[in-house]
Amino acid sequence: LSTAEEGQLRSPDRFTASYVLEGPTSEAPAKARALAVEQSIEFPPELVTDRTVRDRALGRVESVREIGEHLALARLSFGVDTIGFELPQLLQILFGNCSMYPWVRLVGFDLSEELLAPFRGPRYGVSGVRNLTGAGNNRPLLATALKPMGLTPTALARMAATLASDGIDLIKDDQSLADQSFAQFRERVKSCAQAVAEANSQTGRQSLYLPSMNAPADEIRDRAVMAKELGAGGLLVCPGLSGYDTMRVLAADDEIGLPIMAHPTFLGSLVAGRDHGIDHGIVFGTLMRLAGADVTAFPNYGGRFSFPPEACRQIAECSTVPLGNLAAILPAPGGGMTVDRVNEILDFYGNDCAILIGGALHRGDLGANVRLLRDAVDIWSDRSAQP
Amino acid sequence: LSTAEEGQLRSPDRFTASYVLEGPTSEAPAKARALAVEQSIEFPPELVTDRTVRDRALGRVESVREIGEHLALARLSFGVDTIGFELPQLLQILFGNCSMYPWVRLVGFDLSEELLAPFRGPRYGVSGVRNLTGAGNNRPLLATALKPMGLTPTALARMAATLASDGIDLIKDDQSLADQSFAQFRERVKSCAQAVAEANSQTGRQSLYLPSMNAPADEIRDRAVMAKELGAGGLLVCPGLSGYDTMRVLAADDEIGLPIMAHPTFLGSLVAGRDHGIDHGIVFGTLMRLAGADVTAFPNYGGRFSFPPEACRQIAECSTVPLGNLAAILPAPGGGMTVDRVNEILDFYGNDCAILIGGALHRGDLGANVRLLRDAVDIWSDRSAQP
Repeated sequence: LSTAEEGQLRSPDRFTASYVLEGPTSEAPAKARALAVEQSIEFPPELVTDRTVRDRALGRVESVREIGEHLALARLSFGVDTIGFELPQLLQILFGNCSMYPWVRLVGFDLSEELLAPFRGPRYGVSGVRNLTGAGNNRPLLATALKPMGLTPTALARMAATLASDGIDLIKDDQSLADQSFAQFRERVKSCAQAVAEANSQTGRQSLYLPSMNAPADEIRDRAVMAKELGAGGLLVCPGLSGYDTMRVLAADDEIGLPIMAHPTFLGSLVAGRDHGIDHGIVFGTLMRLAGADVTAFPNYGGRFSFPPEACRQIAECSTVPLGNLAAILPAPGGGMTVDRVNEILDFYGNDCAILIGGALHRGDLGANVRLLRDAVDIWSDRSAQP
Repeated sequence: LSTAEEGQLRSPDRFTASYVLEGPTSEAPAKARALAVEQSIEFPPELVTDRTVRDRALGRVESVREIGEHLALARLSFGVDTIGFELPQLLQILFGNCSMYPWVRLVGFDLSEELLAPFRGPRYGVSGVRNLTGAGNNRPLLATALKPMGLTPTALARMAATLASDGIDLIKDDQSLADQSFAQFRERVKSCAQAVAEANSQTGRQSLYLPSMNAPADEIRDRAVMAKELGAGGLLVCPGLSGYDTMRVLAADDEIGLPIMAHPTFLGSLVAGRDHGIDHGIVFGTLMRLAGADVTAFPNYGGRFSFPPEACRQIAECSTVPLGNLAAILPAPGGGMTVDRVNEILDFYGNDCAILIGGALHRGDLGANVRLLRDAVDIWSDRSAQP
């Protein structure tokens, strides 16, 4: 089935992307050729008479091989020049029109140094977020969300105070907090940032408050700047709502300069299909890093959602594997986690993660539950520090 | 199975959304309840002691009924106040976190007058685009794309001149045209806009050139303004890459004031699953209108993609069905269409559409093919105008 040897391609002018193609493997080579055209020139290749255009812009099938029943792996290459160093166009080439094919899943891509160079990526990354929170290097971070939506700024700030006092490092707004009448953005952010600052001044810790950037496209930067001015310690950004590139812009903005936690809302359809979409590690790991997230929140296995452990493993790996000069970022597994699962979760993700527990902390006394969580994390950390 | 009668809900404080739930129907009521929580407060409802918060923010199951084997229809309602009149938050409530459930598909929603009021929607709509193109009311519009990516601005402009001279109404950039070195945005838009203007001055027609807004988030408005200044007649916007709300902002911007064609790239995963995602009509019809598109391009049935005829019918219906005060918009079926299918396509969509044919026009003489297309559309229009 193979039309070329894998690993053969080392042209500086091209980068590769790998797709799993579902369906009879006898049809895979033709599908791969169609995909290479669809993701590049979208034009009958035989009608492109200009050799320069073909060489520059037409996608190529580098290899196709059977990897299972009704499954083939196709490796395509595309011209580096077709990206123009812009993230939206990278997404468009990798999975734009083919998002409308039910039989294709993007499972990897390998950007050249040249393509990676313009991406600044995470401003802080794992070590930067550790520094900002004062968490040091020897324990996982603790994260939670201010919720439920519907509370007033006063109630949310009271909650934020407790969470900060008792040791949560990253206190994010629920992503559903926008600018609703019952908790308007400015008042909410001001109250919560102040509450966290006061708690920090008492504990000597450096909890960060991350307000939600669930905002209209023409207001999102202003809200981020306002958040910074009001004392927010970071931002919660939803690339599914705002676009990956909006997150990249917020991350790169020196006037903002805050660490970013990415939230997975509205992105789930990209990973929900078995034979369609984009691999979890790319959606919640690689692309989040390219787009400047420092922490990536996603639903852990065994919670309210259905991500399998392998998908979570992949997200964690893509968050930290070498990627040009881009910093590693913190996976933040959440989505229905509980304190009694701390050991299991940390055994799975290791030290460099932010354990994200929301609603469960509110069963009984919030402060007491946070302290239980902190103790559980500390115990795990002490134990794992043993030789 | 039903927990309340459908149609019963007429509260001005709430709006409804309907979801198909896949799986044993005995589990559907519990799934519906989980969904109502997940899409609203994401918090154990029994822990919300404040009645105001529950009333204001907690989603409710209005009804659940079996609609097929392993399929149930759940109708939920949400508080109007939880939206805050912002499109990203509307998307987040309708399909944010539940995008990560493989078993749920959003099949409808019914916004209140109050929720619809702040959305300006399409600036031009069907009648506005007809006026701008001078196409009158008695024939479908003709649309095509400048392609393949890889051509120089000079070559693209030459193509645009032919297309305009021979009668294409809407000449859009391929969505893969961004700001690549071989066809930089300013030069490309300037050349193509000028070519179309010159052709218009000779024909007396009003072809519009719509450059691609496949652009970084912090440059997209500048490119739109530049396009306007350089004489573009509209914009091609990709909400899958840039976010629906970015399109809304471009549409509402009086300094730009251009009609918008929406392109479906990167949105396909929302519709690709059978039991997951969002219905085609919502993704490519309703949401496009809410977000200000005047024309919505999508892959027609029987082309390179796999949208079934029912899905295309739904897109056309959602593009034109009454939706508050929002104008009806033009469906633009494309994706591998050919001139010999004109009658069939127009019989399906009727007069108010923009037939979108790309690569096929380039087999043989481009100008001659455009004239064939125009003739075919004119013949269909004359025939369908008969009593």
